[in-house]
Amino acid sequence: MSALKVAIAGLGTVGAGTLKILHENAAEIALRCGRNITVTAVASRDRKKDRGVPLDGVKWFEDANAMAAEADADVIVELIGGSEGIARKTVETAIANGRHVVTANKALLAHHGVALATAAEKAGLSLNFEAAVAGGIPIIKALREGLAANKIRRVTGILNGTCNYILTTMRASGRSFADVLKEAQDLGYAEADPSFDIDGTDAAHKLAILASVAFGTPVDIKAVHVEGIRNVSSLDLQYAEEFGYVIKLLGVAERLDQDGGMLTQSVYPCLITPDMPLANVEGVFNAVVAEGDFVGRSVYEGRGAGAGPTASAVVADLMDIATGRKVPTFGIPAASLKAIPNVPVAAHVGEYYVRLLVVDRPGVFADIAVAFRDEAVSMESVLQRGRNAANVNVVIITHKTQEAALLRALKRLQANAALVEPPHMMRIEK
Amino acid sequence: MSALKVAIAGLGTVGAGTLKILHENAAEIALRCGRNITVTAVASRDRKKDRGVPLDGVKWFEDANAMAAEADADVIVELIGGSEGIARKTVETAIANGRHVVTANKALLAHHGVALATAAEKAGLSLNFEAAVAGGIPIIKALREGLAANKIRRVTGILNGTCNYILTTMRASGRSFADVLKEAQDLGYAEADPSFDIDGTDAAHKLAILASVAFGTPVDIKAVHVEGIRNVSSLDLQYAEEFGYVIKLLGVAERLDQDGGMLTQSVYPCLITPDMPLANVEGVFNAVVAEGDFVGRSVYEGRGAGAGPTASAVVADLMDIATGRKVPTFGIPAASLKAIPNVPVAAHVGEYYVRLLVVDRPGVFADIAVAFRDEAVSMESVLQRGRNAANVNVVIITHKTQEAALLRALKRLQANAALVEPPHMMRIEK
Repeated sequence: MSALKVAIAGLGTVGAGTLKILHENAAEIALRCGRNITVTAVASRDRKKDRGVPLDGVKWFEDANAMAAEADADVIVELIGGSEGIARKTVETAIANGRHVVTANKALLAHHGVALATAAEKAGLSLNFEAAVAGGIPIIKALREGLAANKIRRVTGILNGTCNYILTTMRASGRSFADVLKEAQDLGYAEADPSFDIDGTDAAHKLAILASVAFGTPVDIKAVHVEGIRNVSSLDLQYAEEFGYVIKLLGVAERLDQDGGMLTQSVYPCLITPDMPLANVEGVFNAVVAEGDFVGRSVYEGRGAGAGPTASAVVADLMDIATGRKVPTFGIPAASLKAIPNVPVAAHVGEYYVRLLVVDRPGVFADIAVAFRDEAVSMESVLQRGRNAANVNVVIITHKTQEAALLRALKRLQANAALVEPPHMMRIEK
Repeated sequence: MSALKVAIAGLGTVGAGTLKILHENAAEIALRCGRNITVTAVASRDRKKDRGVPLDGVKWFEDANAMAAEADADVIVELIGGSEGIARKTVETAIANGRHVVTANKALLAHHGVALATAAEKAGLSLNFEAAVAGGIPIIKALREGLAANKIRRVTGILNGTCNYILTTMRASGRSFADVLKEAQDLGYAEADPSFDIDGTDAAHKLAILASVAFGTPVDIKAVHVEGIRNVSSLDLQYAEEFGYVIKLLGVAERLDQDGGMLTQSVYPCLITPDMPLANVEGVFNAVVAEGDFVGRSVYEGRGAGAGPTASAVVADLMDIATGRKVPTFGIPAASLKAIPNVPVAAHVGEYYVRLLVVDRPGVFADIAVAFRDEAVSMESVLQRGRNAANVNVVIITHKTQEAALLRALKRLQANAALVEPPHMMRIEK
């Protein structure tokens, strides 16, 4: 069988990694696919940089979009990134020109996934994106194929390695968020502008994609409630540990009512007990827990980023195309994706961690207790310990309560002059 | 598209579970596959038993082999079990009659996998077996497809839920092997004749299959070194914990020399540190760690047995067939599977745990020390603690040593009259 011809748009670390795998493991890949996978074209602005792989006979394009239209290729691999501009244009052009697409671009899929899937499926083309979510874990394949016999009830995950590295290091070292973020930037685990990672946007993109594949619903990034880790302090990590928890930034997507159909999609830092599978996932690793009606709980862990793991996912997607293995983009045909009403996070019911920094004077604790009582939020544990002469942290673990009630109690307290800073609140996931 | 027609041989718990999924999740399955999956025939001796699913219009066969030849079916699902007899015959007949096969039968694949794969591939048929290895984990799909861009260096796994349940419970409760085995039998986690599980045979079948898929080598059950958990005592679990380890029955398959090619395949109880991913896998759960040259380490955990998880894997295999997704049985064409020389376990190099029950009298410890010294086996830690008046356990953790040298030292000691019972020896996996 003739070789599968591939054109790669974007030769950063993942693009270079993809070239490297296709070169170094060419024999194994050909044996597994029954044909070769050949790179016929690349698009990159920097032509001189050494990618460590021979590129003789490969056609160079300055413009990825032109390559998507003109290259002698069966597949366009889009590794440019970003939900708009040249990345989006390149993928649209590829599909319009009858070429399969493999992409690592979570932002593009989170914002335009349904439209792109619809176009690809109409043209009988594959739009594969294993590399977009936790590259070192074949979780898209697991959800679209391996667990496809199940109704999925819940998907939770540690979806951003930068945040997990920062939280892991803060906990282990007791150092501040700012200090550890700086170190992560020096080590290349965080970007110069880290907001995309630490504010939860990247994890939200991935969660919206996972939710779509798990529940057969259109990707809907706007439905995801997002909180990042900027306000998690080393104090919170210490207090959490004293109460028997660790803090992780989790993505959580859950069907609340399998028949009627209600969905929650959230990304937030939360407290989990050390015996939960995600609690032991440390550093830059990612992990996903999927719960299905027949398979029960299954857990997947691996590297979430980096040239090798991401390129491994890109090449796996190419191999599926080379062998003719097809799946609808989001597991079912795009036209069949069915919107599920989203439950607002205020309707969330659970236990909560609350930390209040207050002036250390008589009566303040009574004010807190009264505010909680008046909103019918019941306290499970309370810890008050002086840190310095003037102020003191009051830490509360609530019993099960509705989030709206807790927020009302905290709003009452914000009017109290004894509060030194806004309340810190995190959910406890069971 | 017309329905995929399926005939199921064997209606035990997994067969009934398969019927249940195909019935309860029929709408989701049809949406994902673009066609229905319909059961047209079943073979079972007990026709009267209620499987909880309507079987109107389904043709009943007494003889699975006759069904494989005569049924109006595209796929035969073999859930009878056993490496020979009717199970083997049924699969052979199915292939000879141009029908795809889905099987949960690890013994059959471990013993006749290459011959069956060769026949299936010659006829252009799928032979799928996700359910044969850790049903609740789509690990065969991960290795054959998701990680297919990688050269795999090492696969390790907790592959037998019965053994993991017994070891977990022994550790938590301090109870004896015999006592916990009895409980596992009462709970239905262990068979009346438990030898297949506790002697490591079941795990060895699974490991041989994983090694074949991971390394592109013919399944070779005879090459697997197997030790079970009969001789693991609650004392060993306690001592291991004192030294900072847990004991797990692991399957380990490793390429020792990626280029030259040497392979080890073993199943044995061993000591691992609590920070290793498999250390926290408890009870009846299974888990597999795969290490690839680009993807790095990835970990998969889920239920290893039971109607739901195993049937989930069977139906996923059927869905691959329904959608025309094909993979060679062991990841590469059977004719291309390449034998890799196996390293005997005596050549194993590592650290060891040794427990010697000896008569508590002067000079015995010196005898032990001399035997180890004379074979150049260096001790890292030693613990001696009296249990009763007459005998005492001496526990040794060795430095890195060759297994053959340690065995020679232990052989010397076996001649020593002070040894009350044969030495207990386990490997430490890093």
